[in-house]
Amino acid sequence: MRRSSPGALRPTRRHVVAALLSWIALAGLPGAIVPHANAQSVAAQAADPLPSWNEGTAKQSIRAFVEKVTQEGGGDFVPVAERIAVFDNDGTLWSEQPVYFQFMFALDRLKELAKANPALAGQEPYKSALSGDPKALAALGEKGLLQIVALTHSGITVTEFNTLVRDWLKTARHPRFDRPYTELVFQPMLELLAYLRANGFKTFIVSGGGVEFMRAFTETVYGIPPEQVVGSSGKTEFVLDGDVPALRKLPEVEFIDDGPGKPVGINRFIGRRPVFAAGNSDGDQQMLQWTTLNTGPRFGLIVHHTDAVREWAYDRASHIGKLDKALDEAPARGWLVVDMKADWKTIYPFEAK
Amino acid sequence: MRRSSPGALRPTRRHVVAALLSWIALAGLPGAIVPHANAQSVAAQAADPLPSWNEGTAKQSIRAFVEKVTQEGGGDFVPVAERIAVFDNDGTLWSEQPVYFQFMFALDRLKELAKANPALAGQEPYKSALSGDPKALAALGEKGLLQIVALTHSGITVTEFNTLVRDWLKTARHPRFDRPYTELVFQPMLELLAYLRANGFKTFIVSGGGVEFMRAFTETVYGIPPEQVVGSSGKTEFVLDGDVPALRKLPEVEFIDDGPGKPVGINRFIGRRPVFAAGNSDGDQQMLQWTTLNTGPRFGLIVHHTDAVREWAYDRASHIGKLDKALDEAPARGWLVVDMKADWKTIYPFEAK
Repeated sequence: MRRSSPGALRPTRRHVVAALLSWIALAGLPGAIVPHANAQSVAAQAADPLPSWNEGTAKQSIRAFVEKVTQEGGGDFVPVAERIAVFDNDGTLWSEQPVYFQFMFALDRLKELAKANPALAGQEPYKSALSGDPKALAALGEKGLLQIVALTHSGITVTEFNTLVRDWLKTARHPRFDRPYTELVFQPMLELLAYLRANGFKTFIVSGGGVEFMRAFTETVYGIPPEQVVGSSGKTEFVLDGDVPALRKLPEVEFIDDGPGKPVGINRFIGRRPVFAAGNSDGDQQMLQWTTLNTGPRFGLIVHHTDAVREWAYDRASHIGKLDKALDEAPARGWLVVDMKADWKTIYPFEAK
Repeated sequence: MRRSSPGALRPTRRHVVAALLSWIALAGLPGAIVPHANAQSVAAQAADPLPSWNEGTAKQSIRAFVEKVTQEGGGDFVPVAERIAVFDNDGTLWSEQPVYFQFMFALDRLKELAKANPALAGQEPYKSALSGDPKALAALGEKGLLQIVALTHSGITVTEFNTLVRDWLKTARHPRFDRPYTELVFQPMLELLAYLRANGFKTFIVSGGGVEFMRAFTETVYGIPPEQVVGSSGKTEFVLDGDVPALRKLPEVEFIDDGPGKPVGINRFIGRRPVFAAGNSDGDQQMLQWTTLNTGPRFGLIVHHTDAVREWAYDRASHIGKLDKALDEAPARGWLVVDMKADWKTIYPFEAK
């Protein structure tokens, strides 16, 4: 047993705030969603599995890692069963600006609820949230955000919530790109996911985002089935009404899968220590530590948002996806910091068309 | 949204008591364990995938179900991605008498702890537990059992716990059969797992037992990898000591995966509604409801312990694995009740040798 260590890390207020919007959790039965055009472009590249990555250290180090862990008889060989790769979602597999996409869902749902119940529009924090005023939104604070999440993500069954998310993803458009949110995924990361899977890796999402929100699209968009999605969640309750069973979503947080919650979630849901982890913020720091500070070959990757033209540029001072401590830690730990602007030929799949 | 229904079912005291021993939860990184002799016998049966099942309704109905859901173009076809099968563990995949095997582990660990700290042997409830007197054990009650679980399943890291369980499974012997506990698995159920997997099903364990306890053996014994094991759990905490990260097991219950907790756990970990569920007690009732009370083809199976000679015979009055309400409900729901004595040619793999 390890003796009492310097820092017992449980999710702190900082993590709760950071994860706040993203834990807007819950509900997710499978099914089909907007079919995306990424699959073909990914599948066709037998020669270069990472065509949207510019030649350079980043691409080389990924390929070198995959080659060594799959080389049977080599000293760094990793058996297929242990090839577990974990990916953060917001900011790692898809964009997260100007605000977590799940929060846009929450706001849209709040508007719907206010239509059905006009009194809501006069009550805080809903009034500020519905105003559309960025200052009012920013002033909501932790308590207000939690109330909005609780209202918009509970009171229905998991099946109903899943339908709501799917319907929203079909119609909602990103304010900057005027495209469905599911098109704002990173082409290089789709290629990386496919490349790892083609080499026997099992790919998981480990995100602060709501697990039931993500499960509504991960299978179609990323090729990651619901049972390989780990995320934040709210409590649910089983009810049986005659012959009709349901899981009702309650307005209570169950688990925040962020910061030190990520290794906890990995252990709880996966039960194996990953050999590959990718993230983009300080919320991924402990997941990167848990993955890479282990014996045997390990790979840690940080997506650094450096492209203000094609995507966004932000890190240490960002209110979303803040990357500060993990960026400082990266060199000593040997984590690959991907420079989005320099390392990625293409960012979104639609650019290539 | 469904309106308030007659019974909002959260785990009650009954469930907590029932799950009590079994939630002796936590910790589990993978690895190899006692290699078992079941694989060959299972693999060799191309003609009859269920050779340890006697001919009859039980075997026929299982085969008919698998054939119809895998028949492409048929009205009952289920796509591979949705072929999720969930299995309870204690009493369904292996025996659970005279007491949950995990509790035997807890008692053995308590003995070890008492060797290192002799004062424990004089303190209740440990004194009663260490006495070996069945009456004293029975009198421990919920509080005493919880204290024993807390003591024996915490204070170490998940990695250390995993090693403890593996080591115990290698040396401990079942009191009646004088064999490792992992040999007391049901040959017909091993065949059923393999048969389902050969037909595109993904098999999961959904058990009141501790997830980290089970993960130490499910891959080798059942062919079920850690990431497909859902169970009860205790809280863990991430700690980083210099360059050494660890997950420390805390003496707090996190989740009881029993009774109405089973559909909750299925939704949380798997995120799909299963098409096949197997259990053996009232703790599986809600899992069977959640699985079978749905559109499309569904299969519910209850293992009824009816063989006092080869295994044990118990149901409505048992203190472990009580089967009462689910047995009453089975006919109306169309759940298959497997009569162990009549339907199973072989019970344990070692019988066949």
